[in-house]
Amino acid sequence: MEDKILLEHGSGAKKTRELIEDLFVNKFNDEKIVDEDAALIYDGKLAFSTDSFIIEPEFFIGGNIGKLSVCGTANDLVVRGAKPKWMSVSFVISEGYPMDKLQAITDSMAKTAKDAGIAIVTGDTKVIARKDFSGIMINTSGIGEIIHATSIKTIECGDVIIISGSLGDHSATILALREGIYLENSVESDCAVLYPMLESIIMQDIRMFIRDITRGGLTSILYEISIATGFGSEISEENIPVKPAVKELCDIMGLDYLGMANEGKVIICVKPQLADIVLDELHRSELGKDAAIIGHITDVHNKVLLHKKNKEVIILTEHTNIPRIC
Amino acid sequence: MEDKILLEHGSGAKKTRELIEDLFVNKFNDEKIVDEDAALIYDGKLAFSTDSFIIEPEFFIGGNIGKLSVCGTANDLVVRGAKPKWMSVSFVISEGYPMDKLQAITDSMAKTAKDAGIAIVTGDTKVIARKDFSGIMINTSGIGEIIHATSIKTIECGDVIIISGSLGDHSATILALREGIYLENSVESDCAVLYPMLESIIMQDIRMFIRDITRGGLTSILYEISIATGFGSEISEENIPVKPAVKELCDIMGLDYLGMANEGKVIICVKPQLADIVLDELHRSELGKDAAIIGHITDVHNKVLLHKKNKEVIILTEHTNIPRIC
Repeated sequence: MEDKILLEHGSGAKKTRELIEDLFVNKFNDEKIVDEDAALIYDGKLAFSTDSFIIEPEFFIGGNIGKLSVCGTANDLVVRGAKPKWMSVSFVISEGYPMDKLQAITDSMAKTAKDAGIAIVTGDTKVIARKDFSGIMINTSGIGEIIHATSIKTIECGDVIIISGSLGDHSATILALREGIYLENSVESDCAVLYPMLESIIMQDIRMFIRDITRGGLTSILYEISIATGFGSEISEENIPVKPAVKELCDIMGLDYLGMANEGKVIICVKPQLADIVLDELHRSELGKDAAIIGHITDVHNKVLLHKKNKEVIILTEHTNIPRIC
Repeated sequence: MEDKILLEHGSGAKKTRELIEDLFVNKFNDEKIVDEDAALIYDGKLAFSTDSFIIEPEFFIGGNIGKLSVCGTANDLVVRGAKPKWMSVSFVISEGYPMDKLQAITDSMAKTAKDAGIAIVTGDTKVIARKDFSGIMINTSGIGEIIHATSIKTIECGDVIIISGSLGDHSATILALREGIYLENSVESDCAVLYPMLESIIMQDIRMFIRDITRGGLTSILYEISIATGFGSEISEENIPVKPAVKELCDIMGLDYLGMANEGKVIICVKPQLADIVLDELHRSELGKDAAIIGHITDVHNKVLLHKKNKEVIILTEHTNIPRIC
């Protein structure tokens, strides 16, 4: 292991997994901490998850750090098969932080939580000197009631891989703003609470895996599946929805949307016979209208393959050089 | 309200309460967020709390930021009358942070949690560029099973005020280290999980209020009691346990131990007839061996009085100039 923390340890990809395994899982002695986005507690009745948010810029098209912090933790519960119910919020704010920005952030958190039926019930506020940090960090932790627990461990060979919509919208929005890049096509963050879109799917008593496609992007999740199950996967570029603005930004910055973070998209793995039911339910929601089958789970361990539009087949590698945006 | 965040907003005293009321409680619409250290959820069966920790220095006599982060959140659950059961941990670490320090911190968290019967079940890790922040921040959120819910609202006029031990140990330890002050007397942080000390008291089915005496110190809690209940309080200086090293540091730095934070001390309010039972239970524990009755609740709203050793009686004011140490 390295003797210092590297930015790459926060990429959401391989180095993050190694750090978590070495420093946390083996000590805290709970495998749930690495394989799933939320832990099951209280005899499996509840899901529990946590996430900290520091982003630059804090305000963006489609949201702000406040909305993001509610959506991010809520979605970690939702993809575990839970209805998010209670949330804590902890602020670390730098001295001199403008009160009107803080107001706008808390307004946004309150509205997002209320709209999603989530009660923000407890909190903490720390103020630190400007010399130590400038800006705001928000931690949210959430508890949800399990409706039908999903798990990465239940994935089987032959399962189809569905994604709920276009990839890279949140990353592209943040990166274009941060780098001052003008895009000809418009894009906004997909930041949203996904419970309404997924409720009817979770309520069906079927074996499935759901994961929100955040830090590390789609490629990292496909590798996580491989590590957790021993299977591989194949996906087809031509079936993956992606917006023109995201492609444009990827061309300019040399990035790959398969490794970029989203804040309102999920991957779902189910057996082929149920794919149409899941797709139909996703298509009913505005958030899932572009949902598509993009590939399937194979029996080739640790091989994550992409069929490109030019018929070439490549082995995907995890991207660790994409700037963190959540 | 000010147009910018001030350091004072993080003092744990009046300005913190104002900020929380203005920005959070009124929006998130849940009074629990301000009056109690933990919220009751799931039909009152569970307590839920959160806390973020950034301290300098991160390692001190009696603990480190890791131990502190487990104790702090655990104690917020305990004082609400719950047995802490599950915890999340979220790290924000600066690029370049030494891995051996991170190892020592997570070792300490794992041991503290394990010793207290708490399972760390879920987590998050973010790495940020050194230019933005240098060091480590830890958020812990915890869930406990309610044994007998305590509440500030149940305090009655005439209740005795008990504290579980000497005040200011944690603050004095941190401040002496931070300022490079040599103390003739030794002191170490009182950082500890308080469930073992309080279990037998919580299990008794009696009306009581318990609060850990952290940021803002004893004085702030006495004002919180006044705001929440409409009562006042009187305490006697001669009955308040305080260590020679803490007095020494207070003399050097011009601080008041009544406003200083602790990480292993509580205040308990119960009716006079039960005071001896509570004291006896506290005295059984090494952590509570110096527990003492220091005063009582009065019917004079918003008057927090201190009977000094020289027979003078003064009205205590909240301290907002004491450096934050947790």
